[in-house]
Amino acid sequence: MAGRLKFFGWGREGEGMTAEEERSALARYARLFPSAELTELPAPKPEDIVLPESRLRIPQALAPICTTDHYERLVHTYGKSLPDTIRGLARDFRNAPDAVAFPRDEAEVAAVLDWAGEASAAVSPFGAGSSVVGGVEPVRGPRHKAAISLDLRHLDKVLEVDQSSRAARIQGGVFGPHLEAQLKPHGLTLRHFPQSFEYSTLGGWIATRSGGHFATLYTHIDDFVENLTVVTPAGRLETRRLPGDGAGPAPERMFIGSEGTLGVITQAWMRLQDRPRFRAGGAVRFTDLYAAARAVRALTQSGIFPSNCRVLDPGEALSNGAGDGSFAVLVLAFESGDHPVDAWMARARECVADHGGTFEGEAGAEGHRAGAAEQWRTAFIRMPYGRERMLPRGIIFDTLETAITWDKFEAFHAKVAAATAEAIKRATGRPGLVTCRFTHAYPDGPAPYFSFHALGRHGQLMEQWQAIKDAASDALIAAGGTITHHHAVGRDHRRWYDRQRPDLFAAAMQAAKQTLDPKGVLNPGVLFDA
Amino acid sequence: MAGRLKFFGWGREGEGMTAEEERSALARYARLFPSAELTELPAPKPEDIVLPESRLRIPQALAPICTTDHYERLVHTYGKSLPDTIRGLARDFRNAPDAVAFPRDEAEVAAVLDWAGEASAAVSPFGAGSSVVGGVEPVRGPRHKAAISLDLRHLDKVLEVDQSSRAARIQGGVFGPHLEAQLKPHGLTLRHFPQSFEYSTLGGWIATRSGGHFATLYTHIDDFVENLTVVTPAGRLETRRLPGDGAGPAPERMFIGSEGTLGVITQAWMRLQDRPRFRAGGAVRFTDLYAAARAVRALTQSGIFPSNCRVLDPGEALSNGAGDGSFAVLVLAFESGDHPVDAWMARARECVADHGGTFEGEAGAEGHRAGAAEQWRTAFIRMPYGRERMLPRGIIFDTLETAITWDKFEAFHAKVAAATAEAIKRATGRPGLVTCRFTHAYPDGPAPYFSFHALGRHGQLMEQWQAIKDAASDALIAAGGTITHHHAVGRDHRRWYDRQRPDLFAAAMQAAKQTLDPKGVLNPGVLFDA
Repeated sequence: MAGRLKFFGWGREGEGMTAEEERSALARYARLFPSAELTELPAPKPEDIVLPESRLRIPQALAPICTTDHYERLVHTYGKSLPDTIRGLARDFRNAPDAVAFPRDEAEVAAVLDWAGEASAAVSPFGAGSSVVGGVEPVRGPRHKAAISLDLRHLDKVLEVDQSSRAARIQGGVFGPHLEAQLKPHGLTLRHFPQSFEYSTLGGWIATRSGGHFATLYTHIDDFVENLTVVTPAGRLETRRLPGDGAGPAPERMFIGSEGTLGVITQAWMRLQDRPRFRAGGAVRFTDLYAAARAVRALTQSGIFPSNCRVLDPGEALSNGAGDGSFAVLVLAFESGDHPVDAWMARARECVADHGGTFEGEAGAEGHRAGAAEQWRTAFIRMPYGRERMLPRGIIFDTLETAITWDKFEAFHAKVAAATAEAIKRATGRPGLVTCRFTHAYPDGPAPYFSFHALGRHGQLMEQWQAIKDAASDALIAAGGTITHHHAVGRDHRRWYDRQRPDLFAAAMQAAKQTLDPKGVLNPGVLFDA
Repeated sequence: MAGRLKFFGWGREGEGMTAEEERSALARYARLFPSAELTELPAPKPEDIVLPESRLRIPQALAPICTTDHYERLVHTYGKSLPDTIRGLARDFRNAPDAVAFPRDEAEVAAVLDWAGEASAAVSPFGAGSSVVGGVEPVRGPRHKAAISLDLRHLDKVLEVDQSSRAARIQGGVFGPHLEAQLKPHGLTLRHFPQSFEYSTLGGWIATRSGGHFATLYTHIDDFVENLTVVTPAGRLETRRLPGDGAGPAPERMFIGSEGTLGVITQAWMRLQDRPRFRAGGAVRFTDLYAAARAVRALTQSGIFPSNCRVLDPGEALSNGAGDGSFAVLVLAFESGDHPVDAWMARARECVADHGGTFEGEAGAEGHRAGAAEQWRTAFIRMPYGRERMLPRGIIFDTLETAITWDKFEAFHAKVAAATAEAIKRATGRPGLVTCRFTHAYPDGPAPYFSFHALGRHGQLMEQWQAIKDAASDALIAAGGTITHHHAVGRDHRRWYDRQRPDLFAAAMQAAKQTLDPKGVLNPGVLFDA
């Protein structure tokens, strides 16, 4: 488990798809793309790759925490997006950082930022490198001579636990599992489990407005942030730790979602939960996505706040082994560390029945771990390992996540799905598959998550992917959605973010950035022009 | 009901304390300040007051929407704070606006801002004028030649209702009752009922992060804002209407709490609620505040989200007619437009019993309207009418609201209460009364609300009040609280806000303001230096 992070693919060295998972995925693609020949290109090895020489000389004072090691530069070149994987497969690591810094405390973070300012180097905070939107790539802007990747893995401690307020002061570089392991002896949990849980950090979650475990109510990490400490090029900033506040615009909110462009999140007091003791749930079948959506609308507007409330359309259910393609599935669960959830579940049953849903088997305390619900959960966690095995065979599999109000949902879904399907056919010359699920849901609308599968051609994968991505993104922005509900903007979503973000807000934030990062070292191209 | 707004005192002309309410208040003060002579000064009349001549000539194009009328200038000089009332009583209206503008649409708001920029005039958005923190007074900064009060009362429509998403597009100048009246035919409600509900506006609530009806979960208006339209001196800005979003820092959050310093909130899509059909609740007695606080902590951490969960300490219960001074009271209620709340109430009973609370009489569906609960509710709504009748008798009655995490609460409460009580004795030469209630509560801490009563001396009221306010505010900032949980910063809280706000955040926001309001016309002195 303590293997090195892979420089190509998901997770750590030695991990990956099982032979059975791979066989099953290939069988699905064989049905989807009959008579296709899947030519598999070999995965890159570190020694295959020639890196440009580092443009930086590490100052003596920073030598203990900085490296130009070949493997570290490779690991810190990319996140885990499809274009990252395409470039990795092509052995294209020309954007490798000139150095990787591993500060051990806030003073060392500040020292790295100072050095970057002096050396005209760009700094990209790395988190755990699982960005799927081009958020961690050490891109240099026109005024940067070099690029540094900033890895906070040594800031991995829970520093303080306040049991009575159910909160903890936690360093920004801690990975999900290590965070939960440190909270467990206190009987507490953050319960923030994005799909990237094992390979993402608290600071990364906050910087990207990560979406987590709870499908309703506490959807994003945002609401769990009690205070923040941020090291900016202009100095260190700490907000007051408060349960609620009304004094001016919330200072935390400027940094939540700032994606490494305004400062480095070094620690945060986080609101925690008791570990759940009571559960109920199950999987519910509906004739189609829209019927399930009507049930979800009723559930979100009822005020009962299910912890899980995820819809899979028929195709998505099939892909995840949670259905045969003839029905949609709602994975529903309640949990509490405080009280039995029977009354909540009883009301949910009524909402579901009102909209024509039928439970698979017996819903109950273990319903969240049975049948389609468990199938979905396993598939969800294992899914990211697929990309590094399927892309080398020319399979383009990617996702788009968004949010839209209920009044627009059906038309929105139809337009985005159609635009994506058409673009697949246009770009690759043959039909693909577009499916949809809901990751989160609100009283005023769902967060639809589209998956698409296309068979590309080696040598053209990037252009094909980009054509599909552009068409889908154009459609969802035109139809009123957001370019990202929880994956973040990064560099890949920037063009549509600019269409969505009010110009005057962009100008105001740019002025704020100029104050906090006067030399513009932080993550050029993300949110702001380089 | 359509009387003019009072220029001195709460509400509209013809409204005020009943004779019975006045007698009862005076009886309480007679017990608190035995043998005191209460000399009553006469309330000011409009014709008593000589205003400085207006420094502005209204441009012809704006003549239909601007006035220099004597009464309008008086009404728009002050909010409803204690220092406002002291100055009103002293016939001191030297800060009267040079003109009052009543734009009828966004173009006219922009035209007023343009005029202000050209005329070097400051602009203070007025809302409905019920600020208790000096937020609406038309203060001129050193670079301003004149001051304009901006009154949005004509922007009072619900423009669009989206029943399926339970949301409505609403203009910023609408008063609370007129807003609810427009929503009622749709079966919907915002359910945002601050104490100032009748005399405050949607735009004012958003600009000040108003705290409302719900004691837990949806405490501030913040979470109900789906999008915002803001007219700034640099132009108009509209955020995308979304149920949830993860694209960069939330643009709405820059303007929520901006207190009229960045722009004028002209409309917002707001998330609404179904009208409640199911209720349960009651009043619970505890031996003291800290015992009640332990029950509230359990309730907030249980995930059952009572709509009312307000604690009155023994003195506060006595002041509000909800107790005899020997016990604390928890006013507890659940409500739902969707389902019976019995299971929720059952769990609340257990939390309450675990911490030694006993229900007054029969708790139940009408419990929220019985006994101490109803007493408190009536007193709460009628309270603001007291100031204009008691201050002319030398009674200094004011409130301080804050929030603090549970780990610090008891020490915090003791320090703030002691500092306030000592300051009363020092400033006025005799003891007063300091009481505390909780207005809102969170899993990680309560929002304590302190009331203080002192007997001042005419001619010294301002100095006496300021000495008490300073001591209390110093104590609460030193002990880790916020200078305001929901009353806003205004000018009265600015000194402590500066201690609480991180300097770098202040600098970043100042840069943002410079972009949106390059001539600095908007509300000088509020949040930023004039």
